Amino acid sequence: MKEKEFLAELAEITLLNQTLALLDWDSQTGMPEEAATERGEASGYLSGLAFEKQTGPKLKEALDYFSAHNDELSEVGKTIFTVTKKDYDQLHAIPKELMVERSRLYSEAHTAWVKARQSKNFADFKPALEENIRITKELIPYYKKDEATDYDVLLNLFEPGMTSAVLDEVFSELRDGLVKIRQLIAQKGITPDTSFKNRTMTTAQQKDFVKNLVAQLGFDFNRGRLDDTVHPFATRLAHNDVRITTRWNEQDFTMGIFGVIHEAGHGIYEQNMAGKYNMTPVYDAPSMGIHESQSLFYEIILGSKRSFWQKQYPIFQAAAEGTFDDIDFEAFYRSLKATAASLIRIEADSLTYPLHIIIRYELEKALFNGDLTVAELPKAWNDKYEEYLGIRPDNDLVGVLQDVHWSGGMFGYFPSYALGYMYAAQLLHAMEKELAIDNLLIKGDYAPIKNWLTEHIHQFGRSKTPNELIKAATGETLNPQYLLNYLSELYQNVYQIKA
Amino acid sequence: MKEKEFLAELAEITLLNQTLALLDWDSQTGMPEEAATERGEASGYLSGLAFEKQTGPKLKEALDYFSAHNDELSEVGKTIFTVTKKDYDQLHAIPKELMVERSRLYSEAHTAWVKARQSKNFADFKPALEENIRITKELIPYYKKDEATDYDVLLNLFEPGMTSAVLDEVFSELRDGLVKIRQLIAQKGITPDTSFKNRTMTTAQQKDFVKNLVAQLGFDFNRGRLDDTVHPFATRLAHNDVRITTRWNEQDFTMGIFGVIHEAGHGIYEQNMAGKYNMTPVYDAPSMGIHESQSLFYEIILGSKRSFWQKQYPIFQAAAEGTFDDIDFEAFYRSLKATAASLIRIEADSLTYPLHIIIRYELEKALFNGDLTVAELPKAWNDKYEEYLGIRPDNDLVGVLQDVHWSGGMFGYFPSYALGYMYAAQLLHAMEKELAIDNLLIKGDYAPIKNWLTEHIHQFGRSKTPNELIKAATGETLNPQYLLNYLSELYQNVYQIKA
Repeated sequence: MKEKEFLAELAEITLLNQTLALLDWDSQTGMPEEAATERGEASGYLSGLAFEKQTGPKLKEALDYFSAHNDELSEVGKTIFTVTKKDYDQLHAIPKELMVERSRLYSEAHTAWVKARQSKNFADFKPALEENIRITKELIPYYKKDEATDYDVLLNLFEPGMTSAVLDEVFSELRDGLVKIRQLIAQKGITPDTSFKNRTMTTAQQKDFVKNLVAQLGFDFNRGRLDDTVHPFATRLAHNDVRITTRWNEQDFTMGIFGVIHEAGHGIYEQNMAGKYNMTPVYDAPSMGIHESQSLFYEIILGSKRSFWQKQYPIFQAAAEGTFDDIDFEAFYRSLKATAASLIRIEADSLTYPLHIIIRYELEKALFNGDLTVAELPKAWNDKYEEYLGIRPDNDLVGVLQDVHWSGGMFGYFPSYALGYMYAAQLLHAMEKELAIDNLLIKGDYAPIKNWLTEHIHQFGRSKTPNELIKAATGETLNPQYLLNYLSELYQNVYQIKA
Repeated sequence: MKEKEFLAELAEITLLNQTLALLDWDSQTGMPEEAATERGEASGYLSGLAFEKQTGPKLKEALDYFSAHNDELSEVGKTIFTVTKKDYDQLHAIPKELMVERSRLYSEAHTAWVKARQSKNFADFKPALEENIRITKELIPYYKKDEATDYDVLLNLFEPGMTSAVLDEVFSELRDGLVKIRQLIAQKGITPDTSFKNRTMTTAQQKDFVKNLVAQLGFDFNRGRLDDTVHPFATRLAHNDVRITTRWNEQDFTMGIFGVIHEAGHGIYEQNMAGKYNMTPVYDAPSMGIHESQSLFYEIILGSKRSFWQKQYPIFQAAAEGTFDDIDFEAFYRSLKATAASLIRIEADSLTYPLHIIIRYELEKALFNGDLTVAELPKAWNDKYEEYLGIRPDNDLVGVLQDVHWSGGMFGYFPSYALGYMYAAQLLHAMEKELAIDNLLIKGDYAPIKNWLTEHIHQFGRSKTPNELIKAATGETLNPQYLLNYLSELYQNVYQIKA
């Protein structure tokens, strides 16, 4: 066995996965309606081929050989070996019957979830959710290494190395800090005028502005593209083919514009991993939280900065062809950062958003550690919204049924969103020690920012763990204070609170 | 071996081919520029998987088994077996080294062709073309069954059952007839005014008109889509996913509009093959000529009819938002059918078009039957243009270098274009015995026309030969007189020639 043969096998798996990514991208961007069943067959068949290779004898032979002859691998080869072996061990251990049952249950649960959303009644989803939790609990032993709790096992599938002990502490600090900022705003703040935000800006005007903007930020359209979809996403078809999508609302320009900035953050990450890892499992993010840190860095960290909009607002006004000419910069900027409690996570503002995540984290943990039954879930959900956000859902559709994740068995995923948020603020803090960010933003000189992120995060792919990356980039492990400081300063400024 | 297993193997091959079609569609409609190399690797890998299965032991086992146990197959199964066996025997016989060499030569020839087009000098393409002819001659013995000449073997790859003996007769009749019509026009005709044809019609206006039009004609957008591309094409990704593409010219609406009608003709065909042949090699056209007959039936047969435009012109005027309001119907209609000799095949009008094809046919035949060397080709080309069309190319770019086919080894393909044309006119003649076509067109009642084509052509896929199809549909074999009659009447009318 030569390293070359090992890499060739990985490349074939990558080519199958790239093709699967195209099949999926296409099905979400414009595939004819009635093609869904046939597309399902094509995706299913190719997934099967990929799975066979990923758990097949050729890969096993390579892994066995290089376990014994690790010294025959190059430095890059060793990294690729380590990551591949980790994936193989996890994937290979699970009995095929369980995988098949899981797929079937997820598919049934998705149908039940859609039905429950129509009836606005959690009861229609309850049995399927119970089944999803059951099968997940059956799978946990196959994933388990040395995690302290079942829920930690799930966390680790998305954020390797993360524990609920850490999250409990970090999230409690974050929650208390956010509540404090919200109290301060309620008592002393001046609420921004948002009356003009629903003025019509056409899709073409928005697209024109934001495509130009994300190209400046560093998204390379020679190696990527932007399309319309119902659910925005970023996907890598290949090292030189990274695609982002968005949805538009002509009465709310923020949806499309911040959506594209967010996905471009993911896209810039995918475009800037080191070429030496291309066509191997190392060419990927080490965790969902790290991936989200890059999208949120662009969308919420840079996109919330006064200096950012000082440069961009005149360009935005020109793109809107006069629609916002009577709105001065201050009013425009403040309107972007208005905050209010709301029920729907994906529509939440940047101050209240993390509270939505903390609620889901606490509920998930309780479900898996035996402190909460599925039957108790809706009430627990509503109680927490009342406690943390001061509002209570009227029905399950705007409450416990709003997110798709649990119907697909994605337990342990939600914390990634808040982790990404905290990582992003922590990265800004570190970056500011080296770069005069506000000056760069005022000039529209974005390259040094992208280069800093590439140097400290993007290039590494999965060759470092999330912890290693954050520590190397910022000098310390996850610390929620940077996000709290950022939000505190930002909202005091926007809400004109004197110190 | 059960029929079910045989069909399952064919379905897997189909799924691979569908995926390859998506990879190709995507690369032509919007793939990021720099992704070409990686896309080539993905397509190459999947092509390899498809080829392995198409010539692999599982298919061989099924074919061997059902050769001996044909009675165990259903009626549909027997048809599928026959077509599959024919493909297998052809594909399997060719030595792999020859296939590899052929791919390499085609690729080199394409590069040489592009270079020669830049220099406008055939000499830069000559060695590569000679190599392509050499390798094709080496391949002919593997394809050969009982054809009389080498060129007939090539013809049969695209039009099974066609011979140059038939084509010689048919094309000579066609050529003489077309020359006569052209002479009549030159002597007695009144040339239509085309001065307004270059008025600006935006892409959006054209798209709006023609999407609506082809939907009425029968192209199902729930099972298909339309996209922009450099080179228009139609492709089937699946039974319920047929895609057509076009290019637009805002100063020449005919390019986009007739282009979409043409591709929709291909698309309607692909959408209406019988479902029982889905996921098998029978779900395809029996020949290139038959496929082209469907696109040309819509583009040139229906699309040249006065009755067709009587219904559509007011809708077209409305779509153009006033641009053509001062042009009366007669002037508009006549402008569509103006004819003049020209050098470029793909821009030729519907009267002179077949002459371009006849020229290429005569040259190809001479190249393969030993009557012409590659060195003599440019002069022979120019001489024929002068003889048949009365004009002579200034340089090779507008002459012998204009078409891509020979660089890709597609010898024997060109006749398909003229065959399709003649088939289309012959089908119209048969259809008119059953349907009052002009009445239907004036009312915009297109369903009976599509249904007639589905009943007589579309549904059969490859279960009948081209000859069988045309004979069953029209009561006779290929007869060029129907096209000549159609064109003669049409152009006498448009050029206002009194009988």
